Amino acid sequence: MSMNMRIGVIMNGVTGRMGTHQHLLRSIVEIIKQGGVKISADRFIIPDPILVGRDSGKLQALCQRSGVPKYSTDLETVLADEQYSIYFDASMTGVRAQNVKKAIAAGKHIYCEKPTATNTAEAIELYRLAENAGLKHGVVQDKLWLPGLIKLRRLIEYDFLGRIFSIKGDFGYWVFEGFTVPPQRPSWNYRKQDDGGIIVDMLCHWRYILDHLFAKVVAVSCLGATHIPRRMDESGRVFDCTADDTAYVTFELQGGIIAHFNCSWATRVRRDDLLTIQVDGEKGSAVAGLHKCWTQHYGNTPRPVWNPDIEQPINYFADWIEVPDQEFYDNAFKAQWELYLRHVALEESFPWNLLEGAKGVQLAEKGLESWRKRAWVAVDEIDV
Amino acid sequence: MSMNMRIGVIMNGVTGRMGTHQHLLRSIVEIIKQGGVKISADRFIIPDPILVGRDSGKLQALCQRSGVPKYSTDLETVLADEQYSIYFDASMTGVRAQNVKKAIAAGKHIYCEKPTATNTAEAIELYRLAENAGLKHGVVQDKLWLPGLIKLRRLIEYDFLGRIFSIKGDFGYWVFEGFTVPPQRPSWNYRKQDDGGIIVDMLCHWRYILDHLFAKVVAVSCLGATHIPRRMDESGRVFDCTADDTAYVTFELQGGIIAHFNCSWATRVRRDDLLTIQVDGEKGSAVAGLHKCWTQHYGNTPRPVWNPDIEQPINYFADWIEVPDQEFYDNAFKAQWELYLRHVALEESFPWNLLEGAKGVQLAEKGLESWRKRAWVAVDEIDV
Amino acid sequence: MSMNMRIGVIMNGVTGRMGTHQHLLRSIVEIIKQGGVKISADRFIIPDPILVGRDSGKLQALCQRSGVPKYSTDLETVLADEQYSIYFDASMTGVRAQNVKKAIAAGKHIYCEKPTATNTAEAIELYRLAENAGLKHGVVQDKLWLPGLIKLRRLIEYDFLGRIFSIKGDFGYWVFEGFTVPPQRPSWNYRKQDDGGIIVDMLCHWRYILDHLFAKVVAVSCLGATHIPRRMDESGRVFDCTADDTAYVTFELQGGIIAHFNCSWATRVRRDDLLTIQVDGEKGSAVAGLHKCWTQHYGNTPRPVWNPDIEQPINYFADWIEVPDQEFYDNAFKAQWELYLRHVALEESFPWNLLEGAKGVQLAEKGLESWRKRAWVAVDEIDV
Amino acid sequence: MSMNMRIGVIMNGVTGRMGTHQHLLRSIVEIIKQGGVKISADRFIIPDPILVGRDSGKLQALCQRSGVPKYSTDLETVLADEQYSIYFDASMTGVRAQNVKKAIAAGKHIYCEKPTATNTAEAIELYRLAENAGLKHGVVQDKLWLPGLIKLRRLIEYDFLGRIFSIKGDFGYWVFEGFTVPPQRPSWNYRKQDDGGIIVDMLCHWRYILDHLFAKVVAVSCLGATHIPRRMDESGRVFDCTADDTAYVTFELQGGIIAHFNCSWATRVRRDDLLTIQVDGEKGSAVAGLHKCWTQHYGNTPRPVWNPDIEQPINYFADWIEVPDQEFYDNAFKAQWELYLRHVALEESFPWNLLEGAKGVQLAEKGLESWRKRAWVAVDEIDV
Repeated sequence: MSMNMRIGVIMNGVTGRMGTHQHLLRSIVEIIKQGGVKISADRFIIPDPILVGRDSGKLQALCQRSGVPKYSTDLETVLADEQYSIYFDASMTGVRAQNVKKAIAAGKHIYCEKPTATNTAEAIELYRLAENAGLKHGVVQDKLWLPGLIKLRRLIEYDFLGRIFSIKGDFGYWVFEGFTVPPQRPSWNYRKQDDGGIIVDMLCHWRYILDHLFAKVVAVSCLGATHIPRRMDESGRVFDCTADDTAYVTFELQGGIIAHFNCSWATRVRRDDLLTIQVDGEKGSAVAGLHKCWTQHYGNTPRPVWNPDIEQPINYFADWIEVPDQEFYDNAFKAQWELYLRHVALEESFPWNLLEGAKGVQLAEKGLESWRKRAWVAVDEIDV
Repeated sequence: MSMNMRIGVIMNGVTGRMGTHQHLLRSIVEIIKQGGVKISADRFIIPDPILVGRDSGKLQALCQRSGVPKYSTDLETVLADEQYSIYFDASMTGVRAQNVKKAIAAGKHIYCEKPTATNTAEAIELYRLAENAGLKHGVVQDKLWLPGLIKLRRLIEYDFLGRIFSIKGDFGYWVFEGFTVPPQRPSWNYRKQDDGGIIVDMLCHWRYILDHLFAKVVAVSCLGATHIPRRMDESGRVFDCTADDTAYVTFELQGGIIAHFNCSWATRVRRDDLLTIQVDGEKGSAVAGLHKCWTQHYGNTPRPVWNPDIEQPINYFADWIEVPDQEFYDNAFKAQWELYLRHVALEESFPWNLLEGAKGVQLAEKGLESWRKRAWVAVDEIDV
Repeated sequence: MSMNMRIGVIMNGVTGRMGTHQHLLRSIVEIIKQGGVKISADRFIIPDPILVGRDSGKLQALCQRSGVPKYSTDLETVLADEQYSIYFDASMTGVRAQNVKKAIAAGKHIYCEKPTATNTAEAIELYRLAENAGLKHGVVQDKLWLPGLIKLRRLIEYDFLGRIFSIKGDFGYWVFEGFTVPPQRPSWNYRKQDDGGIIVDMLCHWRYILDHLFAKVVAVSCLGATHIPRRMDESGRVFDCTADDTAYVTFELQGGIIAHFNCSWATRVRRDDLLTIQVDGEKGSAVAGLHKCWTQHYGNTPRPVWNPDIEQPINYFADWIEVPDQEFYDNAFKAQWELYLRHVALEESFPWNLLEGAKGVQLAEKGLESWRKRAWVAVDEIDV
Repeated sequence: MSMNMRIGVIMNGVTGRMGTHQHLLRSIVEIIKQGGVKISADRFIIPDPILVGRDSGKLQALCQRSGVPKYSTDLETVLADEQYSIYFDASMTGVRAQNVKKAIAAGKHIYCEKPTATNTAEAIELYRLAENAGLKHGVVQDKLWLPGLIKLRRLIEYDFLGRIFSIKGDFGYWVFEGFTVPPQRPSWNYRKQDDGGIIVDMLCHWRYILDHLFAKVVAVSCLGATHIPRRMDESGRVFDCTADDTAYVTFELQGGIIAHFNCSWATRVRRDDLLTIQVDGEKGSAVAGLHKCWTQHYGNTPRPVWNPDIEQPINYFADWIEVPDQEFYDNAFKAQWELYLRHVALEESFPWNLLEGAKGVQLAEKGLESWRKRAWVAVDEIDV
């Protein structure tokens, strides 16, 4: 007599750190625990996951830890099973596209991690295949649901900022090299041959943040650098860093908005958070971190006068005010999962699809091209 | 029987704000008050100024205010007077080069404000003329004597930072447009036709800061923008802004150091000072403002872990410590004046000469060229 | 099919406070709980302890408390049992050497508390016996793994301090005499006839800290004192204190480094911790406590001027900054136990052996000799 | 009809920094300004100074600055003038003894800076000469009148501390070498050939502080060191440091009190003041700085337990309480001057005489002897 909707979800590649914590434990398991995604007073969408991977020992352990009863090491068989309508992919970047293609061929709706493919052409192909098959599809764009960025979005919706013309992004922190203090990121991030590099990692994120919060990206100027030439790997061996650990990037957006970003794993942080985005507009400015957001309206803007003879009389943090928690902020991954499940179950719109995923791949590609050419590169609209 | 050295100084164009306050009142007048520049237990260099300009009323008023007894509206006559051996120029940019040439022709040692000319060729010509005439010459590069930058220089001398690889500069503040709150800068800054624009204004400064503190600038990528299209001038008339009010610039320095700067008169400030320069090195980082400077050594570098699920547990300002005042910091302009007077009187070295001034003009020119070409532009060594 | 390595460990004398808490509960039991010492993705060293002592009631209680199933009051039988390859000794100082000799004779690897013997000759003999028998051996030098001292070691590895020339150690606190407030240390500490005295207790520690963090100790000047002449013992009887409760010690290290220590159970503490070690170097200084560590670099060194006429204008705590937790700090005893087990199982190096233990005994002996002779005494290299 | 007593004071060598500021401006001039030293409701002792030196220009300038009308470059004539009954000496250490002898021969009462001579024999001779001539004599021992030490003396007088057994002194700060930051002390301090060295400078002070506040010094163990081998002098030349810049000293006092001091111009300060003296007694402890003083009574003594497993739960600064200003603290030099003038005028006792001065010289000599012999050296009672 239940009115609940049960949706089978194949979760491939969730034994990795991100897959386990964010997608399985903090999203799907939490949604199950709360009784599903509520769609009316007495109806819920309830995900029914099966974990898929290659190592049955790890899968078994993860089933125990998460309370999910089902797992399989045989992707083909599971894809052929009609009780599962969604295929989720958090596997290694290098094998993602082929897995997604199999799932499309099997008629599954698609949800997957970024980058969706290792090049733009293949990323677009995934979009076309899914569209032609009439399937629903989505790509993880979690940072849009960070509390700091939700607060920023609300400010833009209120028109707090007026006409926006400038965005300044600072991202990064110090990743220890490992010669004394042990490093806090995996070593493959610093090797090109293992798909490492901060441009590939971060430009996907900046694409959807810029496109969705401000305006379409139309051009990019990017300079990469490998500031730390040698690091120590997980087994204590010194290796040469072949991938960029720092990127200095400028984006042009529609309407003449400029976004100026630096991203680095070789910088020390003197600012509000690991990621801060300052937005300057005619009526006001905002600075968003991961969780918090500060504003300065025209009416609170101080009037500095350049006088190097005296100590700075103005405290430039004092005229900003923090945005309070005006709503509940769920885990960013879970928030997007709930929207995706509604999209599949209820036909609600879900703009963060494989085309958007392809745009992220495109921007990373264009960034690398700009670095190589030492010039601005246009970011053309993808012709679908 | 006095052992003091008296040097006549022609001060042209000091009725303007900068000339009056920094060069006359806080430099020359203060040096006279303190008994001159001390060069040994009982010897002093004492400047003997004459104010030169076009408006005798203003000059007379300034003489009264400063206690300087002499002024003239006739530059030629004063240049012909042998009791004056130094010509100082703080006149309008457009007429500076021709005035300096006259002074060189008259055999005066040269000291002048920046930019030394409106184009690189002319700026280099000034250098060559002064050199060929065997005269001493200098250009104001005051920011090198800001306490914050002196502290930064000391840190580099101590090798606090280790190998430096990245410099991030944030400069700017909100200059009111004038529609409600009156503006705090003159309107010509926002008109190209009046030699306005932030690129021309600020790249001269970045050149000597980068060249003298870190390493030679070898390439530039620059994007200008006019984010505020209309402002109100001193007489209350609305005008179209034709000059850039914001610049997004990346510099390449010798040794692969990257300097990433943004400069804007249309931004709100959430940082330690109107100008902050963060320097990242292998062993430590520093952030310098105009007066203060903060450090974070490798040994004090926190270990952030990316966990968007919890509020940021680290206060990213807490692991920095302010550099104390380890020495006396004089007014930046006065400090350079004293060194210039010693250079003239005692043959002490003075590296901030007309060639350095020409390099500042060159960098501004190359920045504008990069903006036009939408590409990186090499900053060639000036062939002298 | 298990790849794990199981090592039998005889734990003698762990019914005492230190043995129970640090060696059994916080080290061996914790290592077992965590699944052993991880040596690769799927291999672990798992200690298999048996508790040995004289009081079966206490042993039984400790087995229950710790979850260790085995105990014995018959050391000889256990030593003859081949399933145990390690002998650990935390018994009374007076009987340690003879127990260790029996264990060496039985072919066990040795790990023991300090002091390893009551005189240097015997401590050296233990080293020779173990070496000649081809056995592995180690001595507890736990303070090297205190977080504060690990942080200090990292600073030295980074070369934060530059050339080090001076070390100032303050150790101690007020141990109540017992006439009103009950004392917080056992009374034998204050009786020479029971091997008490702060010189014998602490100079062992200073030896390995100085030798391993800075440079070899080459000479010592030591003055002991019994500042509190009478105390009350555990049964409420007043007794005469015959052992030193305070030591004023200066050490000379290789390279001309001076270490100036005071240690007292009759002092009140106005400093950061019960033990603080200040290290002064050309480039910076550090003050380490047990857990925390503070730094002051050359660039943050204030410029005091002696002016007794005004209140001190500088806060001399303000220009120091605390070192953040850059890595995980395990219990100091457990950390050394894990390294010792790896040493036995994997042949990894372990420099904290019976020779190092003998050096600690030697320094205490030389300190007492210096006190008696009222002169500096050389600390000769031990001839092995 | 005035009842005031006017006393002529010859002030020799007050053109130096200490003489000018402390003895002339802040002592004698202030005493004159306040109407003299009040000895009853309507009687005052009024000093009548004459400045003596070699450089008439400097003397003239100092007369103008201080308002003292008289000066002379002819010491002999002034000594022969009967209107002056006191001879004060703040001249260079090397010439002090011979000047004082002349003054004694001329029948003047003596007051002088420390050290009174360059060796003990001569210092004692001065004492004997003055005594035999029936003259009054005194030596500057200003630190006894520092507010922090007055507060400490009051605590001892109240018997706050009970039986005192231990004194720990920390003195010093970082004196910049001059290679980057300019130094804040004169360079002769670091050259033996110019009577530099911290042992000679500071042991004179420790002698009168220990003798007068606690008990007679009976033995000394002293180790000097030159931790900074090269510095830059006033004219920018690098020189080799030949004098000790650091001293590690232990004193034995009557009654078994131990005083453990370190003094350094090459240390960074993490404590309450540039000089701190901790005194431990049976009933309580005190820590005195230059101006402030903190106490911890038995009843406020915390009970630390050694537990390295947890972060230090006790804040070891929290259980100390600052001594309030219970009386007025005048400038330390002026306070002693007033007592000396009363001694001369009113026959009041004045224990800080040339014999005490000789004891200071003696202790510095014995400290150097201990360093040379690497042993404790007895500080014999001076046989007068």
